[in-house]
Amino acid sequence: MKDKPESNSHSKVPAVPGPTNPMVTPLLNDLYQFTMSYAYWRAGKHQEHAVFDLYFRKNPFGGEYTVFAGLDECIRFIANFKLTEDDICFIRKTLPPSCEDGFFEYLRGIDCSDVEVHAITEGSVVFPKVPLLRIEGPVAVVQLLETPFVNLVNYASLVTTNAARHRFVAGKSKLLLEFGLRRAQGPDGGIGASKYCYMGGFDATSNVAAGKLFGIPLRGTHSHAFVSSFMSPEEIVHKPLCSFDGSTTCEDFVALVQSWLEKIQRSKLLSVGDTNQSELAAFTSYALAFPNDFLALVDTYDVARSGVPNFCAVALALHELGYKAAGIRLDSGDLAYLSGEARKIFCQVEKEFKVAGFGKMTITASNDLNEETLEALNKQGHEVDTFGIGTYLVTCYAQAALGCVFKLVEIKNQPRIKLSEDVSKVSIPCKKRSYRLYGKEGYPLVDIITGENEPSPKVGERILCRHPFIESKRAYVVPQHVEELLKCYWPGASGKQREELPSLGDIRDRCIKQLEQMRPDHMRKLNPTPYKVSVSTRLYEFIHSLWLNEAPVGELQ
Amino acid sequence: MKDKPESNSHSKVPAVPGPTNPMVTPLLNDLYQFTMSYAYWRAGKHQEHAVFDLYFRKNPFGGEYTVFAGLDECIRFIANFKLTEDDICFIRKTLPPSCEDGFFEYLRGIDCSDVEVHAITEGSVVFPKVPLLRIEGPVAVVQLLETPFVNLVNYASLVTTNAARHRFVAGKSKLLLEFGLRRAQGPDGGIGASKYCYMGGFDATSNVAAGKLFGIPLRGTHSHAFVSSFMSPEEIVHKPLCSFDGSTTCEDFVALVQSWLEKIQRSKLLSVGDTNQSELAAFTSYALAFPNDFLALVDTYDVARSGVPNFCAVALALHELGYKAAGIRLDSGDLAYLSGEARKIFCQVEKEFKVAGFGKMTITASNDLNEETLEALNKQGHEVDTFGIGTYLVTCYAQAALGCVFKLVEIKNQPRIKLSEDVSKVSIPCKKRSYRLYGKEGYPLVDIITGENEPSPKVGERILCRHPFIESKRAYVVPQHVEELLKCYWPGASGKQREELPSLGDIRDRCIKQLEQMRPDHMRKLNPTPYKVSVSTRLYEFIHSLWLNEAPVGELQ
Repeated sequence: MKDKPESNSHSKVPAVPGPTNPMVTPLLNDLYQFTMSYAYWRAGKHQEHAVFDLYFRKNPFGGEYTVFAGLDECIRFIANFKLTEDDICFIRKTLPPSCEDGFFEYLRGIDCSDVEVHAITEGSVVFPKVPLLRIEGPVAVVQLLETPFVNLVNYASLVTTNAARHRFVAGKSKLLLEFGLRRAQGPDGGIGASKYCYMGGFDATSNVAAGKLFGIPLRGTHSHAFVSSFMSPEEIVHKPLCSFDGSTTCEDFVALVQSWLEKIQRSKLLSVGDTNQSELAAFTSYALAFPNDFLALVDTYDVARSGVPNFCAVALALHELGYKAAGIRLDSGDLAYLSGEARKIFCQVEKEFKVAGFGKMTITASNDLNEETLEALNKQGHEVDTFGIGTYLVTCYAQAALGCVFKLVEIKNQPRIKLSEDVSKVSIPCKKRSYRLYGKEGYPLVDIITGENEPSPKVGERILCRHPFIESKRAYVVPQHVEELLKCYWPGASGKQREELPSLGDIRDRCIKQLEQMRPDHMRKLNPTPYKVSVSTRLYEFIHSLWLNEAPVGELQ
Repeated sequence: MKDKPESNSHSKVPAVPGPTNPMVTPLLNDLYQFTMSYAYWRAGKHQEHAVFDLYFRKNPFGGEYTVFAGLDECIRFIANFKLTEDDICFIRKTLPPSCEDGFFEYLRGIDCSDVEVHAITEGSVVFPKVPLLRIEGPVAVVQLLETPFVNLVNYASLVTTNAARHRFVAGKSKLLLEFGLRRAQGPDGGIGASKYCYMGGFDATSNVAAGKLFGIPLRGTHSHAFVSSFMSPEEIVHKPLCSFDGSTTCEDFVALVQSWLEKIQRSKLLSVGDTNQSELAAFTSYALAFPNDFLALVDTYDVARSGVPNFCAVALALHELGYKAAGIRLDSGDLAYLSGEARKIFCQVEKEFKVAGFGKMTITASNDLNEETLEALNKQGHEVDTFGIGTYLVTCYAQAALGCVFKLVEIKNQPRIKLSEDVSKVSIPCKKRSYRLYGKEGYPLVDIITGENEPSPKVGERILCRHPFIESKRAYVVPQHVEELLKCYWPGASGKQREELPSLGDIRDRCIKQLEQMRPDHMRKLNPTPYKVSVSTRLYEFIHSLWLNEAPVGELQ
């Protein structure tokens, strides 16, 4: 019944770096994967060839699309899948003492060299029920991949989709910064969020670790604490500042700022009184440290009466020395109104002091933003150029989980189905292929799932696309372009060509392009049209015969 | 202006293990912490002694309490805080090229040996505005702790609170299992969730890595995939099963199960027809693997017509051999109804086949449970003994983030305040102490915050507790017991006694005890009474004088 410990010397596993988070190991798993693995082994079934699909049932955020992400981490995981002695020791201690030793020998030998993974390319727009990954191999090994794969795909896809939705509302012209690290669900939530928000179309992150790990552009200036750490400009000891071109040195930049503040106060246009001296000192200090990158947070005390005038004084002093200030950040209050007021002041300054371009100063906003507030800002009109988005983005406040599942669809060439009284939870059996069919206008029209060995849909040939569960829902399609969705990212022992894992930048580009390619009515926020997912006639008929076969016949009493 | 690189040879840092997640390093930080650190250094301010408070503004989940968690990870982080050469190299590349070399020398030398951390004991019940941690030390170093600390405390406290709320609704007598790994926000979200749900009162987790790391009890049996991986009992090759006491061996357990299924079918009580053979095979196999721990998932096909009768057949066969089956799990459908039906069948079986205790078979339920569904189940009446809770628990669906902040309250002995048009966002200045005052009945009455050097409240002495911002809200209290909340968990160079970090088990015990000690009206789900947080009269007056001083005077136009 039980095999000898496998020799793993046939290992053809290519070198792929390990998971980003070293805590992603085979033990990052639900216990029942190990109890099942033991039960398979005990029954002599552990080597049976099984096919599992990983898919989700419902698009998140009330939308009609999802972006697939997390594949790279899944492949890193299986490429390095190996239980250590320490792991095996722990599992042995955890399982009942009646478990036989041979199983632990078996665990010692397993890796993923016999596992084959097909997947949709990371960064693709995807839809419910269509397998994102198809994983096949010895049932007792593939079973151990369920929890880590679902963990690695669920949040990745969710937050990438969330980022894409924020980008959609903000529009292409705005700069989007991910500022979520401190509110993310744990350290890894933060790092994952930064990676996947970038993938979904954000421009940069504040998260230094993510910048280092993934090469994502970094952004950040200063906080309220920096402002309130200063008392007054008198405490600034080091006052000289070289001009931009290095030709001269202003020996007292603090006095220069002061003189500009007085000019602003004298100019009737702004009607500025006394500004906060702690804030003025902080801005002046920050400019001395970063004369080329002066961006100031202007709402520690009062935006219009203190923050913006103080900013303008420092910016004008920098300007006199040949520098160009970067802009302001607003982190509270009515962002539409305040950004408008700030813009007015910048334009007045441009006019009053004849500083070309001052009116176009960048305004960044960053206070509890989400899709709804971005949309409300768009409706009201605003002057914000850059949005820094944190909590709602990275925690996916509007929908905190994507319900990916991992279902057995075939074992020993026998198709398997999971029934449920809830039809949306019935799984689609068989090892399958799937295709995206494109229409004349270049938009994707429908995804169709077929059995593994059915002929593929052909360009120009009419094909009947059927709803997987509702008989009356079907439509003929004549595709202008056919794209097979599942590609081989981990060939296992199959000898197939292995698809290269694209770089993060390439995945991001793909994601942005795919989103642009969708028909706009699928993408809109309000009442979007569902994108259709279908099965071939042959698969439809097969599903329903299997279903009838497995479901018990009720008895009305 | 700039110091020589610090010599760190005075390092008195005690040995504390590193953060659970090795990705928690000084680079797990917002970029602006480094830009500010540079600006402090450039201004010669970096050594100024600063005091920061970490606190939150609002209890989560619409409740009136929060459980503080994450302290242990914060202390592990600072105890091992050190930038590597590689880190410094990356920061140098990231900051503008104009930044001076001396800063990177400075970074090379810093650690947290000059930082002092006071905190509330982990696992305590806590309230808005009361500092959870008070961190003091050189401003440029403490600034670098903001993001990691807030990240480590935010989700930890949120999910611990969520677990405590689930326990509150489920009641003490139920077993609560955390099943959230696959839906958690990333790998670390999963591991953190398991740790903190246990802290908040859960009994066990499915997460093997968390079991190994933290010694949390593990639970898990099998999934739908296991059931559907079998076709029929005919495929079971290895059929013998030893009796519990080892005295005899049943040579064909499959036939024994079959005979019990026939007895059940013949007994009129259950009106059972043909059950699903794939399911029967899976249960039989699982029992052969785990005869002492037979717990079966009974809803792959049909709970009442297939799953429960199949379970009973296997359980009765086990019973005949002296084993005791562990129970069933329901993962879909109407859990109140199905658990009731299952209980009825178990009781009928007990009576019909005279198996004492069979009616008390454990029923576990695990389908998208949350506080609301637990409450609805309680109202309807149900027969569930154990709840397995995942998605809603670990992602904190009902409130995906706790808004912890980290505010500068004093620098160079000068109190600092952060103003806001939103009064709830105004910070409480000064280095402070805080106390919990208990009443006659043993309940906590009010938390009071005072200045660092004020005399502490005394048992039996009347003290005026004032709302920090609303003049008219105040009350006299005569405490029967006074508990100082902030304890020294990291003495830095202060020479103070360092509070030991309690074990996870001790923190969990503290949490459960503290929750039980609260007055019930603060804890109830519907319209809970807010627990009062107050300041001393002296602190109240100080806040308001500083506020007036810092706020600009408006001008109505």
